[in-house]
Amino acid sequence: MNFEPAVAKGFQDFLPPESQKRAAVRRIMEKYFRLYGFQPIETPTIEYDELMRSGNLEEDEAVSDRFRLKDRGSRNLGLRYEFTFQLARILKQNPNLKLPFRRYQIGSVFRDEPISSSRFREFTQCDIDIVGDSSTEAEVDCLAAFSDILKELKIKPRIKVNNKKLIISILESLKIQNKDSVMKELDKIDKIGEDEVKGNIRKYADTNQVLALFKLMEKPMDFFVKNLFDGAEEISSLLEKAKAYGFKVEFDPYIMRGLSYYTGNIFEITAEGQKSSIAGGGRYDKLVGKYLAREIPAVGISFGLERLTSLAKIKPKPTKTIVISIEQDKEAINLAKKLRKNNISCILSFNRPGKALDYANSYKIPYAIFIGQEEMKSKKYKLRDMEKGQESLLTEKQILKKLEK
Amino acid sequence: MNFEPAVAKGFQDFLPPESQKRAAVRRIMEKYFRLYGFQPIETPTIEYDELMRSGNLEEDEAVSDRFRLKDRGSRNLGLRYEFTFQLARILKQNPNLKLPFRRYQIGSVFRDEPISSSRFREFTQCDIDIVGDSSTEAEVDCLAAFSDILKELKIKPRIKVNNKKLIISILESLKIQNKDSVMKELDKIDKIGEDEVKGNIRKYADTNQVLALFKLMEKPMDFFVKNLFDGAEEISSLLEKAKAYGFKVEFDPYIMRGLSYYTGNIFEITAEGQKSSIAGGGRYDKLVGKYLAREIPAVGISFGLERLTSLAKIKPKPTKTIVISIEQDKEAINLAKKLRKNNISCILSFNRPGKALDYANSYKIPYAIFIGQEEMKSKKYKLRDMEKGQESLLTEKQILKKLEK
Repeated sequence: MNFEPAVAKGFQDFLPPESQKRAAVRRIMEKYFRLYGFQPIETPTIEYDELMRSGNLEEDEAVSDRFRLKDRGSRNLGLRYEFTFQLARILKQNPNLKLPFRRYQIGSVFRDEPISSSRFREFTQCDIDIVGDSSTEAEVDCLAAFSDILKELKIKPRIKVNNKKLIISILESLKIQNKDSVMKELDKIDKIGEDEVKGNIRKYADTNQVLALFKLMEKPMDFFVKNLFDGAEEISSLLEKAKAYGFKVEFDPYIMRGLSYYTGNIFEITAEGQKSSIAGGGRYDKLVGKYLAREIPAVGISFGLERLTSLAKIKPKPTKTIVISIEQDKEAINLAKKLRKNNISCILSFNRPGKALDYANSYKIPYAIFIGQEEMKSKKYKLRDMEKGQESLLTEKQILKKLEK
Repeated sequence: MNFEPAVAKGFQDFLPPESQKRAAVRRIMEKYFRLYGFQPIETPTIEYDELMRSGNLEEDEAVSDRFRLKDRGSRNLGLRYEFTFQLARILKQNPNLKLPFRRYQIGSVFRDEPISSSRFREFTQCDIDIVGDSSTEAEVDCLAAFSDILKELKIKPRIKVNNKKLIISILESLKIQNKDSVMKELDKIDKIGEDEVKGNIRKYADTNQVLALFKLMEKPMDFFVKNLFDGAEEISSLLEKAKAYGFKVEFDPYIMRGLSYYTGNIFEITAEGQKSSIAGGGRYDKLVGKYLAREIPAVGISFGLERLTSLAKIKPKPTKTIVISIEQDKEAINLAKKLRKNNISCILSFNRPGKALDYANSYKIPYAIFIGQEEMKSKKYKLRDMEKGQESLLTEKQILKKLEK
């Protein structure tokens, strides 16, 4: 065999303990999604290629970086690069779906990005969306759910908000053309700095316009509300409602987000002390209804499991105990069954005790229980605390009580 | 726009309530995987095409039905058609992985099968495997975990077991050549009946051999053990140990399973009253170590989430309550926060109450809580039981207690 087995370029395995932490983060996310009344959905990994490139999304990098393939019937297919475009298809195909539709989805998305990039070509995206609700309350609801998740993951967030309409009306008030190009330049300010951005914008605006633009961008929220800038009221309402919910949102006029489909408030969430964002989202009222004769408002947040897992300050729990049978298999099996019934995870070992203890050490299993002839007779089992090295003789009841914590 | 949005041929969406049931089944599975000390792993959806076709697996349908694609670098890639072949790569790339390695994996696998088939081209496979343990105990452990899952899903299983070595030694005892072909024919007995199978086997054996073969296949387990048929002891030991664990396993010499990589005991699990299997697995001692200089024993069970979900007699829980603010937003938000803190799922509504109740009905939300000015004053909230139509005034504490169940 000449082939040297390797993971495909740009892809990765997740093995313990990393994979255990990922699973724990996922469980916490799903818990809050359920508590907030979001329902799970699953969409195909593969879609017709035409579905992915239709509309004005073609310009986005994510779309053009999709993987393409054909099936045996020579159909043009592609791997999903995100989940949102599939919502438009679902609403068209399920006209009776009751709105607002609160959904969450967790799964793999794919981008055939150049190999040089440090990003992976398959990553796990987590989305929550409320479709069919145009209120600011729906926006705050998404942010609140995500805030609760971050709290449990012990990640301190900074939630920044901007508004697509506001930026457009700022540019319009200054009579700046090429609004899309200018917004793209403004989006780079974190990466390349203000001076370079100003220089770039000079391609589309004269010096006075650029100066006036940056002066305007420094104004506080109140200014835009008072002067009736479009979208300002939406941000202001969001800031206020988030306060009622008990979390802080900051206005930042430089937040643009890459995707062109946002129509109102836009969110970007960073972790304290981190530059790159951990989640983003916003209102997109023109995408979901695109195959129907009507507009359907929608708002959502999307975040990456990889990034969230790397920042989460939680420790996944290892298997709680190993039950070592010393020729008392039936008794060991019975104890294992009882442990599991009491929600205590355990592995059975019929091996030499030394080997079993070595195994427990390598997988950080905190307890070992020995069941031999003596234990059978006395109805007390030897419980070994693997870290402290202490052993104690306990009844079954005592063991269950001790390990239940 | 001429394109009519549709799900790609052979693929499907999962929407509520089906998707909620799927998520519930998945949670139950993961609970038992953890309780049995299996650790989650995740592998890429995309692998080098060469990894998938290397070795003697080429003959299997699953392998030849893989989806193929290329990335921008023109690498030959494919979508995984199952998880097991990736274990061989992982063991090669992670030589320090401590054995036995107990892993589970849940995720999408893909088969580019002919469109006419009623099977879907993407389905969710769930695997548990113990790598590096050659004992029958490990085999029983996998079956026990799966049995517990089926119990909670209220599916009554029939677990059938056979042994690859036994079948080979039966065929050898009769001097039948073309063993692989004969095994493939025997595997069809459930679908096409004994007579047709006998006819087909005549291609590889004479009448006397066929008669003797079917006579042997009727013998009970004891016969094969007594006469020292290879593999018989392995089945017999499995049957006995399953008994100690408290579940029943039947010997069935016609179980073959499609995959050629099994080396010892083979399992097939059907649901009572159902013909097609819901899970399968067995021992495969020659696959996982194939890129290393040594043999690594392994055993596992694989099952499909779709089939399990369709048979499961569980009802996923809808969102528990909708909290309807009648111009008391702050109070409503506070109650929602308390409900969620007490693990009670809820949706906030700032809409007209009639609309909110209509919404609760359509998503089968069992309770609605009203918060208006009166409720604020009296510190008692109106709780409506949506099914019975009864309303009662309750304190916050009483509401939490009532809904916590």
